[in-house]
Amino acid sequence: MSTTENLKLFYNRLSELYRLRCISALLDWDHQVYMPSGAAQARADQQEYFSITIHNKTVDPEFLRAVDELNDVRDSLELADQVNVREIKRQVDIERKLPEEFTAEFSQTSSLSYSAWVKARPENDFKAVQPYLEKLVRLNRRFCDLVGYEEHPYDALLDQHDPGLKTSVVKPLLTGLGEDLRRIIPQIAEKFEGLGELSGHFTQGSQHELCKKVAADLGFSFEIGRLDTTAHPFMTTLGPRDFRITTRYFEDNFLRALYGTIHESGHALYEMGLPTEYAGTPMGEAISSSIHESQSRIWENPVGRSREFCSYLSKLLPDYFHEEAKALDPEMLWRYANRVEPSLIRIEADEVTYCQHIVIRMLLEEPLVTGDLSVSDLPAAWNEHYEKYLGIRPPDMKDGVMQDVHWYGGSLGYFPSYALGNLYNAMMMEAAHASIPGLSTQIERGDFTSMLGWLRENVHRHGMRYRGPELIKNITGKELSAKAFVEYLKVKFLG
Amino acid sequence: MSTTENLKLFYNRLSELYRLRCISALLDWDHQVYMPSGAAQARADQQEYFSITIHNKTVDPEFLRAVDELNDVRDSLELADQVNVREIKRQVDIERKLPEEFTAEFSQTSSLSYSAWVKARPENDFKAVQPYLEKLVRLNRRFCDLVGYEEHPYDALLDQHDPGLKTSVVKPLLTGLGEDLRRIIPQIAEKFEGLGELSGHFTQGSQHELCKKVAADLGFSFEIGRLDTTAHPFMTTLGPRDFRITTRYFEDNFLRALYGTIHESGHALYEMGLPTEYAGTPMGEAISSSIHESQSRIWENPVGRSREFCSYLSKLLPDYFHEEAKALDPEMLWRYANRVEPSLIRIEADEVTYCQHIVIRMLLEEPLVTGDLSVSDLPAAWNEHYEKYLGIRPPDMKDGVMQDVHWYGGSLGYFPSYALGNLYNAMMMEAAHASIPGLSTQIERGDFTSMLGWLRENVHRHGMRYRGPELIKNITGKELSAKAFVEYLKVKFLG
Repeated sequence: MSTTENLKLFYNRLSELYRLRCISALLDWDHQVYMPSGAAQARADQQEYFSITIHNKTVDPEFLRAVDELNDVRDSLELADQVNVREIKRQVDIERKLPEEFTAEFSQTSSLSYSAWVKARPENDFKAVQPYLEKLVRLNRRFCDLVGYEEHPYDALLDQHDPGLKTSVVKPLLTGLGEDLRRIIPQIAEKFEGLGELSGHFTQGSQHELCKKVAADLGFSFEIGRLDTTAHPFMTTLGPRDFRITTRYFEDNFLRALYGTIHESGHALYEMGLPTEYAGTPMGEAISSSIHESQSRIWENPVGRSREFCSYLSKLLPDYFHEEAKALDPEMLWRYANRVEPSLIRIEADEVTYCQHIVIRMLLEEPLVTGDLSVSDLPAAWNEHYEKYLGIRPPDMKDGVMQDVHWYGGSLGYFPSYALGNLYNAMMMEAAHASIPGLSTQIERGDFTSMLGWLRENVHRHGMRYRGPELIKNITGKELSAKAFVEYLKVKFLG
Repeated sequence: MSTTENLKLFYNRLSELYRLRCISALLDWDHQVYMPSGAAQARADQQEYFSITIHNKTVDPEFLRAVDELNDVRDSLELADQVNVREIKRQVDIERKLPEEFTAEFSQTSSLSYSAWVKARPENDFKAVQPYLEKLVRLNRRFCDLVGYEEHPYDALLDQHDPGLKTSVVKPLLTGLGEDLRRIIPQIAEKFEGLGELSGHFTQGSQHELCKKVAADLGFSFEIGRLDTTAHPFMTTLGPRDFRITTRYFEDNFLRALYGTIHESGHALYEMGLPTEYAGTPMGEAISSSIHESQSRIWENPVGRSREFCSYLSKLLPDYFHEEAKALDPEMLWRYANRVEPSLIRIEADEVTYCQHIVIRMLLEEPLVTGDLSVSDLPAAWNEHYEKYLGIRPPDMKDGVMQDVHWYGGSLGYFPSYALGNLYNAMMMEAAHASIPGLSTQIERGDFTSMLGWLRENVHRHGMRYRGPELIKNITGKELSAKAFVEYLKVKFLG
């Protein structure tokens, strides 16, 4: 077929797959947000039907042939087509290396393991999940061997979430970060000693209104988006103009819902800023999990936990919590929003200690994959690492090695994205401050237009054109490193 | 192929189509309940993609061949298979008689006409919709000719919503009903003269809780269902264990949301009571729009607007509206819930005058289809019929001939179902009272178990096994008529 015909076939199929993925995302959103519990089995069937349909349409020989032929002439294509063909080729090459029986076994084992984990976690019963985890580690290793890798088997897993990411890059980067953080955490934590709890009652209704107000101020459009309530906050895209975020409310502390909302808004602002003319193709998609996480964290932390933001927030509060707001001047708000303290649970960790949770996980999953660490030794290794990197020891499994769903759902290699997101956002924020004069003053008066405009210009509009490290080099002229992040923490907390 | 192989192919396809229909229903539910407005275009594309997929899988030659071959040996099949083959044969025979260009033109015209109506209605601009309506009437007439009919073209339209229903049956039935109602409406309306409005402020939150309580008492299970808020209340099924209803709230009158909820709960109780072992096949589906409407109305009116129900309700109210409840003894509640008064708007009409709105519409759409009434003469004919059947004349188009979406969305032949539902439910209620001793006392104490059990036994569990008139004859020994309904109204309101 001619290149023109191949491109037509290629884009028609991408557009169909995009439509199917959006519908599948709606099935999942509804599942998490509103679906009655009794509908779980039928919804699982609907989701499975969709997965199979999407898979079949992806590995359809006619489509694969077009992808291969286009890839052979890639250099002669327009820029956007080059990027799209490169990324889709990468994705389908993985997809076709996986035998059907492998995909089926992986999916079934993950599902059984997940159910076992849901039951075993509250009972601190690691033994109950151990055989599943052992099987999932073996399946992940088999995945690496099937897909292939140049240097290290763990690379095959990293690459899933962050195309091109290598163990040889991420391991020294994160272990170095871990050492830096070990040095500064005690000094920073000391500054928050004696800080009490927020006082007052913050009704869910008022919190919801405040969250919507702040999200809208940041640039989240409610004409093409929604904010709902779920146990586990998330962001999902249901179409080129349909972005949904969720949060959860605690009536004794409005900051949890608020910062959760800011985090998810950051993810949504990235998706809203991707070029719609390329919707459904890699040129209209996020680069990687790490860059996605940089976009949520940049709003949550360097922007949202700054003194200037707390000043903006303190002016809003009286409209939502009349009585409680009286005790919350910008300085107190800043302290409550920034409290640094080593703790057991990753998702509740502060800006400074957060990355240690990731360093620990990376240092455990890499040897799990190579076979240097056995699953039976994992709980002890977990506790030792917490002792070393955070100076605390989990009293049980539930808040220790069993706290995150990732491994028990079959996912290894995702965690590093969370830390890389922080490194990226610190480098970006440094560059944003350098190129937007008066950014801090704008943030203080609740004007986030320049900040969002800068991210759109430098990050969002490129889709998958660049890999993460290439993008950050274009923006800052520097290689990805932990330097800006550690420096930012030192300046912010140690003056 | 052998019958066994054909049955396998037949049921596999029905199961796939069911899954697709459920997902399509979710797309629609989300559209009406939560979707941000900016997502409309992409959602329309997703819906169109689904319609095409469903259509293609329905008219797939291999499937049609199996249906035809099974239909040839229908008498030799098991009972459930017989019913399923009969109904699917009926549906696909219609589907394959419609050329693709016809379906496309119909769909496009309906969509344009709907948009024109949305804009023209508030402006009372019938001229703006007239050309669309003329085209839709012609397309509906062409539909009748393509699909075919034995006696009357309007039969082809009626049959869409109520399989087997004939103009020769429905027209005398409803015109007779119209005459009966003309005689009793003035006498009944007189009894409500001077009744004021409810007083008090009924917060949406408390109304929502009350609606959930009443729906649960009726038998609606929130483990497999939800109640949400929309401008236009509806009920939809998203899977074998996923039933969603919606209502809307007015803070000056809680009865509107409550009776809306009871109505939609009635629809949901029917769907919840269909045999799950046949889910996705006609044996697990509702008989017709009329029978569906009988199930919503039986709870809303003969049960929900009875003196006994008002007594049950008056005992609940203090928990939801402490102050307001003081003025609402069972008798006052009954009067507010039953106020009879000729009015312009069908969806706001009371139990007695409601059917007149339907009689009028049927008497207009039948000659529209035959060509005996032109669209340009429709507004005048509308007003004359309102004068004759309800003694009032619409002051404008918006609350007159332009009030309902049906015609402007291309749907003719649906309206009669609404009236037939009332006739069916009156006959059913008579039979239920005869076979459940103490039913009124049970309702008074909020125990609806026997009532629901009786409907499940006599209506729900049969799926599409019988046609509506056959079902009612099995239950009551009588032919479908307006007698029970008119008698019920006379006893209730004129003593």
